[in-house]
Amino acid sequence: MLIREAVADDWPRIWPFWHRIVAAGETYTWDPDTTERAARALWMAPAKRVYVAVDDAGAVVGSAYVTSNYGGPARGIANAGFMVDPDRAGQGIGRALAEHVLAVAKAGGYRGMVFNAVVETNPAVTLWTSLGFTILGTVPDAYEHPRFGRVGLHVMYRAL
Amino acid sequence: MLIREAVADDWPRIWPFWHRIVAAGETYTWDPDTTERAARALWMAPAKRVYVAVDDAGAVVGSAYVTSNYGGPARGIANAGFMVDPDRAGQGIGRALAEHVLAVAKAGGYRGMVFNAVVETNPAVTLWTSLGFTILGTVPDAYEHPRFGRVGLHVMYRAL
Repeated sequence: MLIREAVADDWPRIWPFWHRIVAAGETYTWDPDTTERAARALWMAPAKRVYVAVDDAGAVVGSAYVTSNYGGPARGIANAGFMVDPDRAGQGIGRALAEHVLAVAKAGGYRGMVFNAVVETNPAVTLWTSLGFTILGTVPDAYEHPRFGRVGLHVMYRAL
Repeated sequence: MLIREAVADDWPRIWPFWHRIVAAGETYTWDPDTTERAARALWMAPAKRVYVAVDDAGAVVGSAYVTSNYGGPARGIANAGFMVDPDRAGQGIGRALAEHVLAVAKAGGYRGMVFNAVVETNPAVTLWTSLGFTILGTVPDAYEHPRFGRVGLHVMYRAL
Protein backbone atom coordinates (compact mmCIF):
# COMPACT_ATOMS: atom_id res chain seq x y z
CA MET A 1 0.00 0.00 0.00
CA LEU A 2 1.17 3.46 -0.96
CA ILE A 3 0.37 6.70 0.83
CA ARG A 4 0.87 9.82 -1.27
CA GLU A 5 -0.41 13.38 -1.50
CA ALA A 6 -3.83 13.58 -3.09
CA VAL A 7 -4.32 15.28 -6.44
CA ALA A 8 -7.55 16.75 -7.79
CA ASP A 9 -8.22 13.63 -9.85
CA ASP A 10 -8.35 11.52 -6.70
CA TRP A 11 -11.54 13.15 -5.47
CA PRO A 12 -13.98 11.02 -7.54
CA ARG A 13 -12.36 7.96 -5.95
CA ILE A 14 -12.58 9.40 -2.43
CA TRP A 15 -16.18 10.56 -2.70
CA PRO A 16 -17.91 7.09 -2.75
CA PHE A 17 -16.57 6.06 0.66
CA TRP A 18 -16.63 9.63 1.98
CA HIS A 19 -20.34 9.77 1.19
CA ARG A 20 -21.03 6.33 2.60
CA ILE A 21 -19.29 7.18 5.89
CA VAL A 22 -20.90 10.62 6.35
CA ALA A 23 -24.35 9.44 5.23
CA ALA A 24 -24.23 6.71 7.88
CA GLY A 25 -24.12 9.49 10.50
CA GLU A 26 -22.16 7.49 13.04
CA THR A 27 -18.72 9.09 13.12
CA TYR A 28 -18.62 12.59 11.61
CA THR A 29 -20.19 15.88 12.66
CA TRP A 30 -21.04 16.76 9.09
CA ASP A 31 -24.49 16.77 7.56
CA PRO A 32 -25.29 13.25 6.29
CA ASP A 33 -26.81 14.91 3.22
CA THR A 34 -23.61 16.78 2.35
CA THR A 35 -23.43 17.14 -1.44
CA GLU A 36 -20.43 16.01 -3.42
CA ARG A 37 -19.50 19.61 -4.13
CA ALA A 38 -19.67 20.64 -0.47
CA ALA A 39 -17.81 17.50 0.55
CA ARG A 40 -15.00 18.28 -1.83
CA ALA A 41 -14.78 21.82 -0.47
CA LEU A 42 -14.58 20.42 3.09
CA TRP A 43 -12.07 17.65 2.44
CA MET A 44 -9.87 19.19 -0.25
CA ALA A 45 -9.79 22.73 1.16
CA PRO A 46 -6.72 24.76 0.21
CA ALA A 47 -5.62 24.97 3.87
CA LYS A 48 -5.50 21.18 4.13
CA ARG A 49 -2.78 18.79 3.08
CA VAL A 50 -4.62 15.74 1.79
CA TYR A 51 -3.28 12.20 1.38
CA VAL A 52 -4.63 9.02 -0.13
CA ALA A 53 -3.89 5.38 0.58
CA VAL A 54 -3.65 3.38 -2.63
CA ASP A 55 -3.65 -0.42 -2.68
CA ASP A 56 -1.50 -2.63 -4.89
CA ALA A 57 -4.21 -2.68 -7.56
CA GLY A 58 -4.27 1.14 -7.68
CA ALA A 59 -7.57 1.60 -5.83
CA VAL A 60 -7.94 4.55 -3.44
CA VAL A 61 -8.91 2.87 -0.16
CA GLY A 62 -8.57 5.73 2.28
CA SER A 63 -7.80 9.40 2.69
CA ALA A 64 -6.64 11.76 5.40
CA TYR A 65 -5.96 15.45 5.79
CA VAL A 66 -3.86 17.53 8.13
CA THR A 67 -4.32 21.23 8.80
CA SER A 68 -4.05 23.72 11.66
CA ASN A 69 -6.66 23.19 14.34
CA TYR A 70 -6.58 26.85 15.33
CA GLY A 71 -5.22 30.08 13.90
CA GLY A 72 -3.08 32.91 15.18
CA PRO A 73 -1.23 32.24 18.43
CA ALA A 74 -2.37 28.58 18.48
CA ARG A 75 -1.56 27.70 14.90
CA GLY A 76 1.14 25.28 16.10
CA ILE A 77 -1.49 22.66 16.94
CA ALA A 78 -2.62 20.39 14.11
CA ASN A 79 -5.92 18.74 13.31
CA ALA A 80 -6.47 15.73 11.08
CA GLY A 81 -9.32 13.70 9.65
CA PHE A 82 -9.44 10.16 8.32
CA MET A 83 -11.71 8.12 6.07
CA VAL A 84 -11.16 4.48 5.17
CA ASP A 85 -13.37 2.64 2.68
CA PRO A 86 -15.67 0.57 4.95
CA ASP A 87 -15.16 -2.40 2.61
CA ARG A 88 -11.48 -2.28 3.51
CA ALA A 89 -11.83 -1.95 7.28
CA GLY A 90 -9.53 -3.95 9.55
CA GLN A 91 -6.60 -3.97 7.15
CA GLY A 92 -4.46 -1.41 8.92
CA ILE A 93 -5.21 1.38 6.46
CA GLY A 94 -6.35 3.83 9.12
CA ARG A 95 -3.26 3.17 11.21
CA ALA A 96 -0.96 3.61 8.22
CA LEU A 97 -2.65 6.90 7.29
CA ALA A 98 -2.47 8.09 10.89
CA GLU A 99 1.22 7.28 11.24
CA HIS A 100 1.87 9.11 7.96
CA VAL A 101 -0.11 12.17 9.00
CA LEU A 102 1.53 12.29 12.45
CA ALA A 103 4.96 12.22 10.80
CA VAL A 104 3.98 14.89 8.28
CA ALA A 105 2.57 17.12 11.02
CA LYS A 106 5.66 16.78 13.18
CA ALA A 107 7.94 17.47 10.21
CA GLY A 108 5.81 20.52 9.42
CA GLY A 109 6.55 21.98 12.84
CA TYR A 110 3.31 21.22 14.66
CA ARG A 111 3.78 20.61 18.40
CA GLY A 112 0.63 18.61 18.97
CA MET A 113 -2.51 17.29 17.30
CA VAL A 114 -6.11 17.64 18.44
CA PHE A 115 -9.22 15.77 17.32
CA ASN A 116 -12.13 18.01 18.32
CA ALA A 117 -15.05 15.63 18.05
CA VAL A 118 -14.41 11.88 18.17
CA VAL A 119 -17.72 10.06 18.62
CA GLU A 120 -17.18 7.97 21.73
CA THR A 121 -18.63 4.84 20.13
CA ASN A 122 -16.29 5.08 17.12
CA PRO A 123 -14.00 2.01 17.08
CA ALA A 124 -11.21 4.37 15.98
CA VAL A 125 -10.95 5.62 19.58
CA THR A 126 -8.95 2.46 20.30
CA LEU A 127 -6.66 3.18 17.36
CA TRP A 128 -6.04 6.76 18.45
CA THR A 129 -5.30 5.62 21.99
CA SER A 130 -2.85 3.01 20.75
CA LEU A 131 -1.10 5.78 18.81
CA GLY A 132 -0.60 7.84 21.96
CA PHE A 133 -3.68 10.06 21.93
CA THR A 134 -5.40 10.72 25.22
CA ILE A 135 -8.98 11.79 25.86
CA LEU A 136 -8.79 15.33 27.27
CA GLY A 137 -12.50 15.47 27.90
CA THR A 138 -15.90 14.50 26.54
CA VAL A 139 -18.82 16.71 25.53
CA PRO A 140 -21.73 14.72 26.98
CA ASP A 141 -24.67 13.58 24.86
CA ALA A 142 -23.54 15.79 22.00
CA TYR A 143 -23.98 13.36 19.10
CA GLU A 144 -27.26 11.78 17.98
CA HIS A 145 -26.14 8.30 16.97
CA PRO A 146 -28.64 6.42 14.79
CA ARG A 147 -28.19 3.17 16.76
CA PHE A 148 -26.94 4.21 20.20
CA GLY A 149 -28.87 7.43 20.83
CA ARG A 150 -27.07 10.42 22.31
CA VAL A 151 -23.39 9.73 22.84
CA GLY A 152 -20.45 11.90 23.81
CA LEU A 153 -17.80 13.57 21.68
CA HIS A 154 -14.22 13.12 22.86
CA VAL A 155 -11.59 15.81 22.49
CA MET A 156 -8.38 13.84 21.91
CA TYR A 157 -4.78 15.06 21.95
CA ARG A 158 -1.25 13.91 21.30
CA ALA A 159 1.98 15.83 21.60
CA LEU A 160 4.25 15.57 18.54
CA MET B 1 -27.70 48.82 28.58
CA LEU B 2 -29.55 47.24 25.68
CA ILE B 3 -28.72 43.95 24.00
CA ARG B 4 -30.19 43.53 20.53
CA GLU B 5 -29.53 41.66 17.32
CA ALA B 6 -26.74 43.21 15.29
CA VAL B 7 -27.41 44.78 11.92
CA ALA B 8 -24.91 45.32 9.13
CA ASP B 9 -24.42 48.97 10.13
CA ASP B 10 -23.14 47.86 13.55
CA TRP B 11 -19.98 46.34 12.13
CA PRO B 12 -17.95 49.59 11.89
CA ARG B 13 -18.64 50.07 15.61
CA ILE B 14 -17.66 46.49 16.49
CA TRP B 15 -14.44 46.46 14.45
CA PRO B 16 -12.38 48.90 16.60
CA PHE B 17 -12.55 46.76 19.74
CA TRP B 18 -12.61 43.50 17.74
CA HIS B 19 -9.32 44.53 16.15
CA ARG B 20 -7.81 45.68 19.42
CA ILE B 21 -8.67 42.39 21.15
CA VAL B 22 -7.49 40.10 18.34
CA ALA B 23 -4.35 42.17 17.64
CA ALA B 24 -3.35 41.81 21.30
CA GLY B 25 -3.10 38.06 20.71
CA GLU B 26 -4.00 37.10 24.26
CA THR B 27 -7.47 35.58 24.02
CA TYR B 28 -8.46 34.52 20.50
CA THR B 29 -7.11 31.87 18.15
CA TRP B 30 -7.40 34.17 15.17
CA ASP B 31 -4.53 35.81 13.33
CA PRO B 32 -3.66 39.10 15.09
CA ASP B 33 -3.28 40.62 11.61
CA THR B 34 -6.82 39.68 10.54
CA THR B 35 -8.08 42.34 8.13
CA GLU B 36 -11.34 44.16 8.68
CA ARG B 37 -12.90 42.33 5.75
CA ALA B 38 -11.86 38.91 7.05
CA ALA B 39 -12.94 39.84 10.56
CA ARG B 40 -16.37 40.80 9.36
CA ALA B 41 -16.67 37.49 7.49
CA LEU B 42 -15.70 35.63 10.68
CA TRP B 43 -17.90 37.52 13.11
CA MET B 44 -20.94 38.33 10.97
CA ALA B 45 -21.09 35.00 9.09
CA PRO B 46 -24.57 34.06 7.83
CA ALA B 47 -24.62 30.97 10.09
CA LYS B 48 -24.15 33.13 13.18
CA ARG B 49 -26.72 35.07 15.16
CA VAL B 50 -24.92 38.21 16.25
CA TYR B 51 -25.82 40.56 19.09
CA VAL B 52 -24.53 43.89 20.30
CA ALA B 53 -24.55 45.54 23.70
CA VAL B 54 -25.40 49.23 23.44
CA ASP B 55 -24.90 51.64 26.33
CA ASP B 56 -27.24 54.42 27.36
CA ALA B 57 -25.40 56.89 25.11
CA GLY B 58 -25.89 54.62 22.08
CA ALA B 59 -22.31 53.33 21.90
CA VAL B 60 -21.69 49.70 20.89
CA VAL B 61 -19.65 48.37 23.82
CA GLY B 62 -19.67 44.64 23.13
CA SER B 63 -20.79 41.93 20.75
CA ALA B 64 -21.45 38.22 20.83
CA TYR B 65 -22.50 35.50 18.40
CA VAL B 66 -24.12 32.12 18.76
CA THR B 67 -24.00 29.35 16.18
CA SER B 68 -23.79 25.56 15.99
CA ASN B 69 -20.51 24.18 17.23
CA TYR B 70 -20.79 21.12 15.02
CA GLY B 71 -22.91 20.00 12.09
CA GLY B 72 -24.98 16.96 11.25
CA PRO B 73 -25.76 14.64 14.16
CA ALA B 74 -24.15 17.04 16.67
CA ARG B 75 -25.80 20.27 15.50
CA GLY B 76 -27.71 20.48 18.78
CA ILE B 77 -24.63 21.83 20.56
CA ALA B 78 -24.02 25.57 20.35
CA ASN B 79 -20.89 27.67 20.25
CA ALA B 80 -20.58 31.34 21.12
CA GLY B 81 -18.00 34.10 21.05
CA PHE B 82 -17.77 37.35 22.98
CA MET B 83 -15.96 40.65 22.63
CA VAL B 84 -16.25 43.56 25.05
CA ASP B 85 -14.61 46.91 24.42
CA PRO B 86 -11.50 46.78 26.68
CA ASP B 87 -12.22 50.37 27.74
CA ARG B 88 -15.49 49.11 29.20
CA ALA B 89 -14.16 46.05 31.02
CA GLY B 90 -15.46 45.26 34.50
CA GLN B 91 -18.92 46.73 33.93
CA GLY B 92 -20.82 43.45 33.59
CA ILE B 93 -21.15 43.71 29.81
CA GLY B 94 -19.66 40.27 29.16
CA ARG B 95 -21.93 38.68 31.72
CA ALA B 96 -25.00 40.39 30.28
CA LEU B 97 -24.09 39.27 26.76
CA ALA B 98 -23.43 35.72 27.97
CA GLU B 99 -26.73 35.48 29.80
CA HIS B 100 -28.50 36.76 26.71
CA VAL B 101 -26.74 34.31 24.41
CA LEU B 102 -27.37 31.37 26.76
CA ALA B 103 -31.08 32.20 26.81
CA VAL B 104 -31.20 32.59 23.02
CA ALA B 105 -29.40 29.29 22.51
CA LYS B 106 -31.70 27.44 24.87
CA ALA B 107 -34.77 28.97 23.25
CA GLY B 108 -33.37 27.95 19.87
CA GLY B 109 -33.33 24.30 20.91
CA TYR B 110 -29.64 23.82 21.68
CA ARG B 111 -28.98 21.28 24.43
CA GLY B 112 -25.55 22.52 25.42
CA MET B 113 -22.85 25.06 24.61
CA VAL B 114 -19.14 24.44 24.01
CA PHE B 115 -16.25 26.89 23.94
CA ASN B 116 -13.51 25.11 22.02
CA ALA B 117 -10.49 27.20 22.88
CA VAL B 118 -10.54 29.38 25.99
CA VAL B 119 -7.04 30.62 26.74
CA GLU B 120 -6.41 29.47 30.30
CA THR B 121 -5.06 32.86 31.36
CA ASN B 122 -8.14 34.69 30.08
CA PRO B 123 -9.93 36.36 33.03
CA ALA B 124 -13.20 35.34 31.34
CA VAL B 125 -12.61 31.77 32.56
CA THR B 126 -13.89 32.94 35.94
CA LEU B 127 -16.98 34.42 34.33
CA TRP B 128 -17.76 31.23 32.39
CA THR B 129 -17.33 29.14 35.51
CA SER B 130 -19.66 31.42 37.46
CA LEU B 131 -22.23 30.92 34.71
CA GLY B 132 -22.11 27.15 35.09
CA PHE B 133 -19.49 26.20 32.51
CA THR B 134 -17.02 23.48 33.44
CA ILE B 135 -13.59 22.80 32.00
CA LEU B 136 -13.87 19.47 30.16
CA GLY B 137 -10.17 19.40 29.39
CA THR B 138 -7.18 21.51 28.42
CA VAL B 139 -4.97 21.29 25.34
CA PRO B 140 -1.55 21.82 26.91
CA ASP B 141 0.83 24.54 25.74
CA ALA B 142 -1.32 25.21 22.69
CA TYR B 143 -1.38 29.03 22.76
CA GLU B 144 1.64 31.31 22.42
CA HIS B 145 0.77 34.12 24.80
CA PRO B 146 2.80 37.31 24.31
CA ARG B 147 3.33 37.78 28.07
CA PHE B 148 2.96 34.33 29.60
CA GLY B 149 4.53 32.08 26.97
CA ARG B 150 2.84 28.83 26.03
CA VAL B 151 -0.42 28.34 27.88
CA GLY B 152 -3.25 25.84 27.57
CA LEU B 153 -6.59 26.07 25.80
CA HIS B 154 -9.59 24.97 27.81
CA VAL B 155 -12.56 23.21 26.26
CA MET B 156 -15.52 24.47 28.31
CA TYR B 157 -19.09 23.18 28.40
CA ARG B 158 -22.49 23.93 29.87
CA ALA B 159 -25.75 22.07 29.46
CA LEU B 160 -28.72 24.27 28.52
